[in-house]
Amino acid sequence: MQNGKTPHLRVNPKPHSSPIYIYIYTNTSHSPLLITIYTYIFTMAKLSLSVLTFLLLFSFSFAVKGETWQQGECQIDRINAQEPSNRIQAEGGVSEFWDFNNDEFRCAGVSIHRHRLQPRALMLPAYHNAPVLAYIVQGTGYHGVMVSGCPETFESSQQSEQFQEGRSRKFLDRHQKIGQFRRGDIVAIPAGAAHWVYNNGDQELLVVVLQDNTNNANQLDQNPRSFFLAGNPQREQEQQQFGHGRIRRGQHEFGNVFKGFDIQTLAEVFGVDEETARKLQNENDERGHLIIVERGLQVIKPPLRGEEYGRREEEYGGEEERYMGRSANGLEETICTAKIRENLDKPSRADIYNPRAGRFSTVNSLTLPILGFLRLSVARGVLYKNAIMTPHWCVNAHSIIYVTKGESRMQIVNHRGQAVFDGQVREGQVVVVPQNFAVVKQAGEQGCEWVEFNTNDNAMINTLSGRTSALRGLPVDVIANAYQISREEAERLKYNREETLIFSGRSRSGRGEVAST
Amino acid sequence: MQNGKTPHLRVNPKPHSSPIYIYIYTNTSHSPLLITIYTYIFTMAKLSLSVLTFLLLFSFSFAVKGETWQQGECQIDRINAQEPSNRIQAEGGVSEFWDFNNDEFRCAGVSIHRHRLQPRALMLPAYHNAPVLAYIVQGTGYHGVMVSGCPETFESSQQSEQFQEGRSRKFLDRHQKIGQFRRGDIVAIPAGAAHWVYNNGDQELLVVVLQDNTNNANQLDQNPRSFFLAGNPQREQEQQQFGHGRIRRGQHEFGNVFKGFDIQTLAEVFGVDEETARKLQNENDERGHLIIVERGLQVIKPPLRGEEYGRREEEYGGEEERYMGRSANGLEETICTAKIRENLDKPSRADIYNPRAGRFSTVNSLTLPILGFLRLSVARGVLYKNAIMTPHWCVNAHSIIYVTKGESRMQIVNHRGQAVFDGQVREGQVVVVPQNFAVVKQAGEQGCEWVEFNTNDNAMINTLSGRTSALRGLPVDVIANAYQISREEAERLKYNREETLIFSGRSRSGRGEVAST
Amino acid sequence: MQNGKTPHLRVNPKPHSSPIYIYIYTNTSHSPLLITIYTYIFTMAKLSLSVLTFLLLFSFSFAVKGETWQQGECQIDRINAQEPSNRIQAEGGVSEFWDFNNDEFRCAGVSIHRHRLQPRALMLPAYHNAPVLAYIVQGTGYHGVMVSGCPETFESSQQSEQFQEGRSRKFLDRHQKIGQFRRGDIVAIPAGAAHWVYNNGDQELLVVVLQDNTNNANQLDQNPRSFFLAGNPQREQEQQQFGHGRIRRGQHEFGNVFKGFDIQTLAEVFGVDEETARKLQNENDERGHLIIVERGLQVIKPPLRGEEYGRREEEYGGEEERYMGRSANGLEETICTAKIRENLDKPSRADIYNPRAGRFSTVNSLTLPILGFLRLSVARGVLYKNAIMTPHWCVNAHSIIYVTKGESRMQIVNHRGQAVFDGQVREGQVVVVPQNFAVVKQAGEQGCEWVEFNTNDNAMINTLSGRTSALRGLPVDVIANAYQISREEAERLKYNREETLIFSGRSRSGRGEVAST
Repeated sequence: MQNGKTPHLRVNPKPHSSPIYIYIYTNTSHSPLLITIYTYIFTMAKLSLSVLTFLLLFSFSFAVKGETWQQGECQIDRINAQEPSNRIQAEGGVSEFWDFNNDEFRCAGVSIHRHRLQPRALMLPAYHNAPVLAYIVQGTGYHGVMVSGCPETFESSQQSEQFQEGRSRKFLDRHQKIGQFRRGDIVAIPAGAAHWVYNNGDQELLVVVLQDNTNNANQLDQNPRSFFLAGNPQREQEQQQFGHGRIRRGQHEFGNVFKGFDIQTLAEVFGVDEETARKLQNENDERGHLIIVERGLQVIKPPLRGEEYGRREEEYGGEEERYMGRSANGLEETICTAKIRENLDKPSRADIYNPRAGRFSTVNSLTLPILGFLRLSVARGVLYKNAIMTPHWCVNAHSIIYVTKGESRMQIVNHRGQAVFDGQVREGQVVVVPQNFAVVKQAGEQGCEWVEFNTNDNAMINTLSGRTSALRGLPVDVIANAYQISREEAERLKYNREETLIFSGRSRSGRGEVAST
Repeated sequence: MQNGKTPHLRVNPKPHSSPIYIYIYTNTSHSPLLITIYTYIFTMAKLSLSVLTFLLLFSFSFAVKGETWQQGECQIDRINAQEPSNRIQAEGGVSEFWDFNNDEFRCAGVSIHRHRLQPRALMLPAYHNAPVLAYIVQGTGYHGVMVSGCPETFESSQQSEQFQEGRSRKFLDRHQKIGQFRRGDIVAIPAGAAHWVYNNGDQELLVVVLQDNTNNANQLDQNPRSFFLAGNPQREQEQQQFGHGRIRRGQHEFGNVFKGFDIQTLAEVFGVDEETARKLQNENDERGHLIIVERGLQVIKPPLRGEEYGRREEEYGGEEERYMGRSANGLEETICTAKIRENLDKPSRADIYNPRAGRFSTVNSLTLPILGFLRLSVARGVLYKNAIMTPHWCVNAHSIIYVTKGESRMQIVNHRGQAVFDGQVREGQVVVVPQNFAVVKQAGEQGCEWVEFNTNDNAMINTLSGRTSALRGLPVDVIANAYQISREEAERLKYNREETLIFSGRSRSGRGEVAST
Repeated sequence: MQNGKTPHLRVNPKPHSSPIYIYIYTNTSHSPLLITIYTYIFTMAKLSLSVLTFLLLFSFSFAVKGETWQQGECQIDRINAQEPSNRIQAEGGVSEFWDFNNDEFRCAGVSIHRHRLQPRALMLPAYHNAPVLAYIVQGTGYHGVMVSGCPETFESSQQSEQFQEGRSRKFLDRHQKIGQFRRGDIVAIPAGAAHWVYNNGDQELLVVVLQDNTNNANQLDQNPRSFFLAGNPQREQEQQQFGHGRIRRGQHEFGNVFKGFDIQTLAEVFGVDEETARKLQNENDERGHLIIVERGLQVIKPPLRGEEYGRREEEYGGEEERYMGRSANGLEETICTAKIRENLDKPSRADIYNPRAGRFSTVNSLTLPILGFLRLSVARGVLYKNAIMTPHWCVNAHSIIYVTKGESRMQIVNHRGQAVFDGQVREGQVVVVPQNFAVVKQAGEQGCEWVEFNTNDNAMINTLSGRTSALRGLPVDVIANAYQISREEAERLKYNREETLIFSGRSRSGRGEVAST
């Protein structure tokens, strides 16, 4: 490179997210190993800053403000662990909705719901008015996403013909790329991108979905909306409401957009007769938005790695082997060329790991670039029995936490120093931690696992205790004076805990050296 | 290039907007030509994605949320074709305003108005609190824009002296760059940039203006405001209100900012006597905001191409020849160096063209980079007799449609599958299509021409039928199961229509092979 | 560079902000010097535009709208010069708060307050829900900022050990980077970044703080919040409210976040006994948020330049010499590697200078890149006796003006041409000038000095009179016709004032050739 001023942007394919660093447990805090880690942290910090500086140069001239707030949107005195308040039963399963009008959800500007698809159930194609992040709690399946700018011809490229088993006409089987997902995956869907989902496994497919309604990509209001391209979902919804006639305000609304068009127009734009056009409206369809495909869905998909050359891939062990009997090939995650899927549940992928306490994995715009477009990120936490996630605050995002297993005590504190939440959060419950509110998690006897959605594509946390905490950053004399304690006490406050984020609990007994979740 | 990691950004000067591809009509869907096009689409998709990925890397660390919504802003059950509700008569013409408090305009966060300038009419210099896009429906004229950071000395550079015919003092005639526009041009004005407009043609100059009040560049509230640097526009406005004394809420407000300053202060800051300073306030001026320049406006402007070397430019034919008797030279569009003008009406510029049905042209931040700063884009559509623009939804923007000629039936459907609009839209009417709402247009016997302003600098649409539609992207088996139809019916739904966006209508008779609008 | 398309980004370390150019006073407007300046301006304009264009290319695909406004947020008929409405007394000083519910502050979306720290006073560590800009009106001090991603180990790098005088244990004295500030500095603190401040000087430390609550970095509502990591600030606040029991709406709220956590939990996460844990909550601490460190704060800090090699730095003169007896070394301003501090008060740093009238200095994202992240900028103005800052409007930001010395008459005009403010603004008062509103300042007999915070990281102004004004950009014929004056009068309006931004006043007597403030 002759010209030193040419901007370089070297981002590792999987850098560790900036505020959090690899944790290696060591009892001697003066070991050379630790010093190496400090150096590493220092290098990371420099790298991330130089990237930041570069960014700043690129952003300087945008007029960026302009929005004003309604007073009181986040005047939260009390947070609750929430369960779904509404459910819609369909042929192929059930969808459960949290009430997005709760104070916490209004403050965070998000809505959350959960789909349970039976085996061979298909969620009809739909798009939403805001970006969506889905976490696969259980099961496996396919998804198809039609992103604007990706013509349907994408799938027909290259080798697709050779997999059209049992069909004679070439164009018949052309469709867009299909992705496959399994337990622990997050799937990111941009606003306005139509998509469908199919459960191809033997067990119920359980998916938790966050929709970020105040995202900049949504220019409508804060209410979640789904636009279905098929089916008669609204009829089902009305059933659930016991004939109240009109959709209640504050409920996630959806319907089949073809219903609103005139039959003659549909016949003409599809070049079909009116009888077929009428079918697009699914007028008398009672199956709802989740339907059963009796003989199983027939779609074209490439062979998975291993399958192609007649051998099995050995990279994954255990459960991964049951994942359709095959493993990921790095292709099924693309739409056009964007990767929209990432597995967060593999223990080997942990960003922070403490063999006695648990692990913490994040995915953000550096690990999954489409999240930069969605302005969202996700983290997955696993705490072993009695372990603690240190008190911390999220600098630049709200966190929406869904517990996938076990339970945890959580304490959430606001700017007045009041505990707005202090209680147990169980599997299947949701807790919203507003931006900057301080929070601590303490796992119960069964440990706790959760997924947390953050409303920033690079959510950053600051911890209050531990090796990278705010208190560690303070001079001992500031601590001693602030809390009116001796310098010795101040030193203990600063240095007694050497872990970073995940602390072992009272009993100091983890579940073993190797995480097995 | 030795270093493969150096970011490249190769953007064609006029790439076709991403979701839409050149349409070449062909009856045989298996032709090599089509395959070439598919390959082309595929390449385009890859290119746009690599640009996207690059973008994502640059955006990852911004805290971007924070705004909350008032519930119900876009709770739209009914959309109407709107006409102006208020008009302000002035010496040189009339301005007509749509009521920006209508639900649709509040939802889209925009206001719209239309100026009619008589020949030799000058719109006095003014700036607005939000970015503005103007479409020249009819006529020709000059505009001058004073963008911050562009000193007035810009115009005096290089050759300007040699064109000061008939004037002796050098500095006297220095002024900022002047641009020339004609029918079919869009002109983009950033928020806060003062500008003036002059009709130098023989016919009425008809300009439709969109002001994007919820744009991030506007930090005031959602009400449109104009700050005039001269004239007495408010007086006129009061006349129109039949003496109601006080400006009605919800009306586009404007006045001469010099009126608010003290005369002594003005005299001092301009270094003139108080009598001249008083003239800045135009206290007794009854001409309004559009004035007539009796002898025609005398300004310095460079020779146009062709004129300079004593020959006419042949690039343009027909109407273009009448464009001041000269043609564009690529210079008159700059402010400092930014291009703010683009012609959308030339048939040869079409992005999508179907000789039997019509054409569609877009201008976005890739074709006119200042739109990236304004976060707006524009499209121009022409449908021949009975032609159809396929049902589609705009993924990331509201569309504000102004019909410039003919009429069209439009159907707009919301997320509940309800038709919120189904009616005729005529020349001079405005319809707002909210983000994600599905819409279909069917031209009448006279065809239909329109301009649509989109509230995103790279508005993307997804179609519901045709060759690049969402349905084409679905596996046949998904379609068959979703609509409970046979595979053969599903194939017909997918493949019967080969066009992309603009479909020929029932009679299948376009206006001829060559578009003549 | 073989490949001409590789993007270059050459930004001078300290380019002059784009809308404003170096002013060199000269009486002959035809001098070669002036022509050189014009050329320079022209080059600058081109440079900034090419940077802009580059930016635009990088921003094209973001969905950026989505926020709607409450009508009437900026319906301002009357602006007032504001003084603090609330004060909180603490052991180490007092904090005074302006009422952020005033119309002007609601419109601008900011809150403002002022701290007065006595010598040896420490402001306890805290973080805010929005970015903060502080201007040091008087005094000197240290600050420590804990930015997320900067581990506490940063300070321990390199030479820190050698400065641990009088301490034996290595880790004991490790803390994060400390910066030093003095009169005229602005300090930028990102949202959510914890920080503390200490007055190490002999006089009162007077700091004016702007908090930008509608900044995109704040996802909570528009109310300012401070989260303290120590102390018992709320108790103090209650005292001030005369036992009203509950915090009044609209008041800047804060408390110690440790108070909300359970003692056992704190003991465990800090690995200390419950007695020490209880101290974190400062339950019975009556000192408030500003405490006195009796023996002076003991912290580790590097030697300043000059000090290190046993000599004094000569770069600064006068007041700078009193700055802790040493001078800046370019290191104390970093957090990790980001510079967060910049001095605005040095006369030699002026961006615009008129020896007869005053000077104007700006700091924006080009001079201090972190401002691009905060989306804020600052300017410092000094007007000599009777001098005038020409009428102008800020294109893309609100301006929040705090007068630090003297007084000035200000006139502020809205879009209807009404003077919403016409009065004197004195030392210690705050005036908000909304975006696009026209404003003129005229210093009194004592001159006037102020600092203005702008809600855009690259605030741009357009002037109404003077050498780079909008009127200079207009053709003489437009001026003559607009104001119904002769061409000779129009020429006088355009050319009579040759200054740029800072005009000498009636008496035309400045305070001397060399600014001495």
